[in-house]
This record gives sequence, C-alpha cells and structure tokens, in this order.
Amino acid sequence: MTFIDQLQAATRANTSLLCVGLDPDPAKFPGRFRNDASRIHDFCAAIVDATADLACAFKPQIAYFAAHRAEDQLERLIAHIHRSAPQVPVILDAKRGDIGSTAEQYAIEAFERYGADAVTLSPFMGFDSVQPYLKHHGKGAFLLCRTSNPGGDDLQAQRLASIDGQPLVYEHVARLAQGPWNLNGQLGLVVGATYPNEIERVRALAPTLPLLIPGVGAQGGDAAATVRAGLRMQGDTITGPVVVNSSRAILYASAGDDFAAAARAAAERTRAELHAARSL
Amino acid sequence: MTFIDQLQAATRANTSLLCVGLDPDPAKFPGRFRNDASRIHDFCAAIVDATADLACAFKPQIAYFAAHRAEDQLERLIAHIHRSAPQVPVILDAKRGDIGSTAEQYAIEAFERYGADAVTLSPFMGFDSVQPYLKHHGKGAFLLCRTSNPGGDDLQAQRLASIDGQPLVYEHVARLAQGPWNLNGQLGLVVGATYPNEIERVRALAPTLPLLIPGVGAQGGDAAATVRAGLRMQGDTITGPVVVNSSRAILYASAGDDFAAAARAAAERTRAELHAARSL
Repeated sequence: MTFIDQLQAATRANTSLLCVGLDPDPAKFPGRFRNDASRIHDFCAAIVDATADLACAFKPQIAYFAAHRAEDQLERLIAHIHRSAPQVPVILDAKRGDIGSTAEQYAIEAFERYGADAVTLSPFMGFDSVQPYLKHHGKGAFLLCRTSNPGGDDLQAQRLASIDGQPLVYEHVARLAQGPWNLNGQLGLVVGATYPNEIERVRALAPTLPLLIPGVGAQGGDAAATVRAGLRMQGDTITGPVVVNSSRAILYASAGDDFAAAARAAAERTRAELHAARSL
Repeated sequence: MTFIDQLQAATRANTSLLCVGLDPDPAKFPGRFRNDASRIHDFCAAIVDATADLACAFKPQIAYFAAHRAEDQLERLIAHIHRSAPQVPVILDAKRGDIGSTAEQYAIEAFERYGADAVTLSPFMGFDSVQPYLKHHGKGAFLLCRTSNPGGDDLQAQRLASIDGQPLVYEHVARLAQGPWNLNGQLGLVVGATYPNEIERVRALAPTLPLLIPGVGAQGGDAAATVRAGLRMQGDTITGPVVVNSSRAILYASAGDDFAAAARAAAERTRAELHAARSL
C-alpha cells in the first residue's frame, strides 16, 4: 500500500481531512508533564491515542525532538502510531534538502530508521536532491511550495523571467512536482493555509497532488476557505486530496491533566469544520 | 570570539583555506572500521587529529550521523574537535529551513546541543526562517546560494522578473545575505566549486561574506580557480574569506589502516594547492 493509498484510506475511514501535528515543546506541556523532556513520547502518544480515529495523518516535527536529544523518543512514537493507529500514515516533517549522496542518508533516516510513510522536503537544490527519496517506492514526499510564514514571500512569491509564462517561484515548483519530477506518483506539495487564493492557484497547476496545508489553528488560517481552495472531488471520490495540519491548537488545548480529552475535543471541532466545508 | 573571528584566526594559524568535511559512511570506512557504524566517532576523530593543524574548519554532515542513529557520536565528535583542535571552528552541515518557532528548535539543536560554531541553512522560506539562528550571538550561518549539484539550476539559476535588475535567484540570495538579512554580521554563503564564474559573481554581490565552497575533490571542482574566484585580500588581510571544503578525497584517501596518514597527505596537498592560488 503506497503512502497515497494509505492517506486516501485514512481520510475515508476517519472521515477526516485533519492532520494532527506533533510539535512537542516541554515548556508548553500540560499538568504533570510540564518541562519534562523525558516525557515527550508519553505526551505525544497520549495525543495520538486521543485522536487516532479523527486524523487522516500524524505529522511529527523532528526539530522538536532533536532540540531535546529525543530521537529515541521519536522512533518509539512512530512505532506507537503504527501500532495504535495502523490506518493513519505518518508524515515526518523534516524539510530536508541536500545533494544526492546526502539525500540518500536523509531518506534512510526518514523511511528506514524512523519508519515514516512520507517526508517534507525543500525543493531549493533541485530534482537530484529530491530523487533519492523517490527510490523508496511507495513512500511520499511533500515539497515546500508556498509556505505560510511572512518570509515565504522573499523567494517563493517572486516572478521567474526565465520560465515560460513567467510563473512565480512557487507556481514553478507546483508544475515541476505535478509533471517531470513526479516519476512514480509519490509527490505532494506544502501550501500554507494563510493564503487560500494561492492554494487555489497551486491546485490549478497541480490538480491531483496531495496538498499538505499547515497554518490552520494557531497560525490563523481559515479551515473552510482552505478546504474549498484545495480539495477536489468527483462525486464521493477525492481527486485532489488535502491534508490540513493543526498542531498547537490541538496539543495545547488544555494546560491541565485533562489535556488528552481537550485535544480530542479540539480535533473533533476542526475535523467537523473541515468536513462541513467539503460540500460548500 | 565570534565564528567569523574564529574562522579568520584558524585560517591564519593553520595557513589554510581548507575545510575538512566529515561525511562518515561506514561502507567506505578503511581497514578495521569497515561497515562498523559504532566507530563513526572514532574514524572521524582520527581524521580530525590527523588534520587539526591543516584545516580552517571542520564540517560534519549531520545526515550521515542521523542515518545510523549516531547523534550521540556526533555530540562526542564535536566535543572532541573543540578539545583537540580548539582553534578550528565547527560548521554543522544541516541545511535546515523552517518557520520561526521550528527554526528556534533547530538553532538549539545546532548551537546548544551539538556546540557547533556555525550551521548551513536553506533560504527558501525567507528571512524569518533564518532570523532565529542570528539570535545566537557570535554564531555563524551559511545560506545555500548556488549549489554544486546538477539540480542547482532548477531554481537557483532562474531569473527573477520581479526584483530590480532581474537577478538570478542565487544572486538575489547573495544580495539579501550581504545586505538586509545580515543583522549582526553572522551570515555567509554556500557556493559550489563547480562554477567558478558564479563564485566570482557571488563575490561581486557579497564582497565581505565568507563563502563556504564544497565540490573540490570528489565532486571535481578546480581548487585554484575556486580560490581566485572567491578570495579577496588587501595586503595580507583577507577581506573576502573562503572556506573550501573537501570531504571524500580526504576521508577515504586510503582503504587501509594507514587511512589517517593518507588523509593528512591528501589534506596537505589540497591545502598547498589552495594556498598557492592565493597569489595567482
């Protein structure tokens, strides 16, 4: 089963477009976990267990583990997800980007060491920095396209004079990912929720790629506008998938020991909001 | 002492423009270390000890450690470099690039956990993805500008219609790094050795930034052409520094148990070649 198949199956099984982002910051941990970096796995596993039937994907952000020397906890967490929520794929948010020989090492890290089903990547170094990940058949790779942070404009929103039709940089990335770079149908794109009209533009250029859309929740993106801009369906079949990520709004929904129930309630609300927007 | 000061001091003390890249691949390890991922630290430490008086910097590539669950060995290796070669700064080659809150975590990883003096970063997500690193005063950050791999053309060599003078993407990055992004003089640029005329172009746009130049040796770049294109001096003072990286040609100079002596000899040759080119 490829990552794309897993994603479609989880979306159907859990009636969900919601990706639960796992960005564990011990300083924000609730109740008894507060400031305890040795409990990163336990905190995240509790979130996973509370949302396993509500998510179409889980997305651990590796920086939050690396800053606390918690790679072993990340390994255990992904193994826990595969055990407790076997129907939900794991996207390792790493945004790697390096020459081929180094990319091969990062691909081993993501797919073999951690057992992730997909990874996020930067396209800045071009196709041969992406290709080594595609040799891991069935795994997915989301390329940064149009990011939701203010600095996203600095490069991604600039216009390219040297490419036919003078696309913006992010439009060029979308075309490459839908077309020549997508050798085995493994690619997707990262597009920030804070720019729905740009999600729509990316969707026009990449009609079938899964779009990973962070920025809903704490970052302020509008859930309904995001789904309308990015999701494409024919009848009941999703032809242009979206994976809408929310991290902080779910993880830190409560600062007390009821955090797991609060996370579940927050995930349920966002999932319902996203689902309602499907028919708009 | 800032990273830039450390780099200048090491360049003078060791009369060296050579950065020794530490990309440990156990399958290529010599003699008794062959295929033994538990000896990554020991192999790299032997290379460091053999070249400590020949290098202006050491550059461990984190992917090679991460693929083998060897983060603890990377920690010990950097501590070893600081002990055995206290005059030589460490550039952690990680090419991270993410939104501000995540970048803060990666900066903690690089500077606090690993104790690196500088880090490599991707500029694709813009200034706010770089800024968190600059809050670590005195540390350095090299932004990917023009990389030496074939796919470097896919984005970096495209022309920007929307920026004054229609620069190429990498020229735009060079200007941003020399100018508005370089808040406290901490930035440098990564420019591949395989394109000396582009090194010259970057140097014209960024006259004082340190240039980290990979691609000499195994990747085929010409050492002398690289130095001529990138180094700028006034009398005996370096006003435009270069840090020329060689990894595989040094690490794997011999497949036998004489690997450390062979690495030293290879480093001496490259250092001499780079030094001779200063006066050309």
